[in-house]
Amino acid sequence: MTRTAAIVRDIPEESAPTTRCRILATAEEAFRVVGYQKTTVADIAKTLRMSPANVYRFFESKKAIHEAVIKRLMDDTERRVALAAVAPGRNAAERIADVVTVMHQACVERCEANPRLHEMIEAAVTESWDVCRAHIDAIGSALRGLVQEGAVAGEFDVADPAIAAACIHTAIIRYCHPALVSHYPDAGAPPLAAMIAFLLESLRRRA
Amino acid sequence: MTRTAAIVRDIPEESAPTTRCRILATAEEAFRVVGYQKTTVADIAKTLRMSPANVYRFFESKKAIHEAVIKRLMDDTERRVALAAVAPGRNAAERIADVVTVMHQACVERCEANPRLHEMIEAAVTESWDVCRAHIDAIGSALRGLVQEGAVAGEFDVADPAIAAACIHTAIIRYCHPALVSHYPDAGAPPLAAMIAFLLESLRRRA
Repeated sequence: MTRTAAIVRDIPEESAPTTRCRILATAEEAFRVVGYQKTTVADIAKTLRMSPANVYRFFESKKAIHEAVIKRLMDDTERRVALAAVAPGRNAAERIADVVTVMHQACVERCEANPRLHEMIEAAVTESWDVCRAHIDAIGSALRGLVQEGAVAGEFDVADPAIAAACIHTAIIRYCHPALVSHYPDAGAPPLAAMIAFLLESLRRRA
Repeated sequence: MTRTAAIVRDIPEESAPTTRCRILATAEEAFRVVGYQKTTVADIAKTLRMSPANVYRFFESKKAIHEAVIKRLMDDTERRVALAAVAPGRNAAERIADVVTVMHQACVERCEANPRLHEMIEAAVTESWDVCRAHIDAIGSALRGLVQEGAVAGEFDVADPAIAAACIHTAIIRYCHPALVSHYPDAGAPPLAAMIAFLLESLRRRA
């Protein structure tokens, strides 16, 4: 077999990006309806009327498909956070409030659209921690930038902006983690706006 | 059968409190070693060399045993929190720091002693929310009392002590919830002391 023939044989019937997207969309739907644990690569292939081997040409495992699905959701949240972080005409405190609100909204929307998201996130934490860690780092970096900006502008009075940002990030987990937002009965958590005001108060310059 | 005979027949071989305690200790051990889901009332009875029917004379279900086991752990934490909350010679801020530290320590100790605690807590949240809710309320009430005390003493400057206390309570979930303490990889959460300092800063009277 010539090299050209081998290459031709490896090109999927459809263009690779389209098939990749179709696999991800089908997997996302299956994880949402059937659940992550119960969905197999064979199920995904069957829905797409292709062979499991063909799915494996694009993703080496169910875990790899799952990582691509959750990464897409995380990327979307990161984009929304990045936009809120640079919104013109808003001071650093207002933009921190916007960023946290956007994170909470994205989480609530996702939990409502996918009641089994909890299962996907649990699997991600256990099996794909690097993907989760990168997402947490991206959000942490946005918050850190805003606290630093406010400190430089004299809006905040903080000894260590990185620690202050990490405190805010950790303090809002109740409102921004799918496992806590979707699966946890409400037990006296204050409204998000009250929590944001409380946290920002810690940053403010003393008179 | 006379009434007296019926009563005599209902008295366990051992005194009721002792048997009750033995059932709880055995159940706690089984939940810890085998896991809550896999442990049956029959297993607990077998370990105790008694009939399942005898266990059911003390607890109507596995759920009731489980509730008694977790309530014992929660009561212990509540006692430690109550002690920290009234420690003499410490101002309100110091006692809030002590209370949060005690909660974190109790959680860490329990997670270390019982790597399956996570499973028990998950079952408690799903099946016995009232027990969890009462525990959360007890801790919330201790924190509220301390913030109010600090506000009255002029140590804190807060518009609404109840909301401020709820914010602190919710902000520390990362350090005091078994599911997050034991089962969650560390992802940049600041040291607890830094978080406590950050939260107390929000309460402080402005110069």
